[in-house]
Amino acid sequence: MSAGVEWALHCTVLLAVLKPTSTLPGRALAEFHGVSESYLLKHMQALTKAGICESVPGPTGGYRLARKPREITILDIVEAIEGTEPAFRCDEIRQRGPTAMDVSTYTVRCGIHSVMLDAESAWRQSLRTRTLADLTPLSVQTMDQQRVDIATTWILENVRRTAVPRRDESTAGGDPRAKAAVSGDAIHRCQPKGCQ
Amino acid sequence: MSAGVEWALHCTVLLAVLKPTSTLPGRALAEFHGVSESYLLKHMQALTKAGICESVPGPTGGYRLARKPREITILDIVEAIEGTEPAFRCDEIRQRGPTAMDVSTYTVRCGIHSVMLDAESAWRQSLRTRTLADLTPLSVQTMDQQRVDIATTWILENVRRTAVPRRDESTAGGDPRAKAAVSGDAIHRCQPKGCQ
Repeated sequence: MSAGVEWALHCTVLLAVLKPTSTLPGRALAEFHGVSESYLLKHMQALTKAGICESVPGPTGGYRLARKPREITILDIVEAIEGTEPAFRCDEIRQRGPTAMDVSTYTVRCGIHSVMLDAESAWRQSLRTRTLADLTPLSVQTMDQQRVDIATTWILENVRRTAVPRRDESTAGGDPRAKAAVSGDAIHRCQPKGCQ
Repeated sequence: MSAGVEWALHCTVLLAVLKPTSTLPGRALAEFHGVSESYLLKHMQALTKAGICESVPGPTGGYRLARKPREITILDIVEAIEGTEPAFRCDEIRQRGPTAMDVSTYTVRCGIHSVMLDAESAWRQSLRTRTLADLTPLSVQTMDQQRVDIATTWILENVRRTAVPRRDESTAGGDPRAKAAVSGDAIHRCQPKGCQ
């Protein structure tokens, strides 16, 4: 599995603490994780293309999640980076060699292929049952509240407020810009119990 | 996943129809699957090293399973080729950047790492519950009995009888060479129902 999956998961967990009216610029995401912005860019673009993140343009812009953390599964993020192709590719080896028959004979999926697909289904199902809401900064970083406090301070110093409505809010009733303007803190503060 | 997994599974399914007193030379394994013997060699060596196959030397030699088909899980074969390292490697990204703390703070596994390991455990568990005995030639090849009959004939023409006891039999009581000498057919013939 490519290293991009781990980067994408860490970036989205960080974005999951932002409120919809906040963004973090790519530069800040890169700095927080100690990596170059250009390296993160391709993964953030993949997440944006998959509808997991949104990129808000302009001076108050940056990245934020496109949906609520509980509506984004870990599988969504893994597939945004790795694609949806199974890891096991069946090359129909059974149709080779001196005992092979006409292609029309092979109407049933190869048993080896089935067994490998079953295992991949179990893997996907495990990732499908977990969402970003399950991966709080506490669970990812450390059980140390001090670390969370430091990270919270850092995020608040780097977060930007934006009046651009999130895609899933712009279709709802009312004036989303007005909603954004009256929103309180820029992030969901994390406490050891009941985090997010 | 490397293509070697598929080749290893097809070869071991073929060897699963042999009785312990029979072997198939590498040349025959390669011919049956329409691939070069030199290409298969590295995979057969990996299977042998992992204790899944045995290589019997000499003019009556060749490959056979080292254990009964029901004692060899699909995971055994996949790990013989791919190794046991998880597909997801945690690079401890949480310990990077301006908010990182002393390494001693990170006593609990990163939550992202845990979620990814849980999914891999589900994948491994799925492969661990299936054995070579579940993958009969019928399930792999086709539901067509004609294909199985052709393959059976081909195997009987290429199989070799050997008096060299299998490793797990050489420690049992009695004279294994005598047992081998009186054994009947060289393979387990496959029927549509109750195959193997």
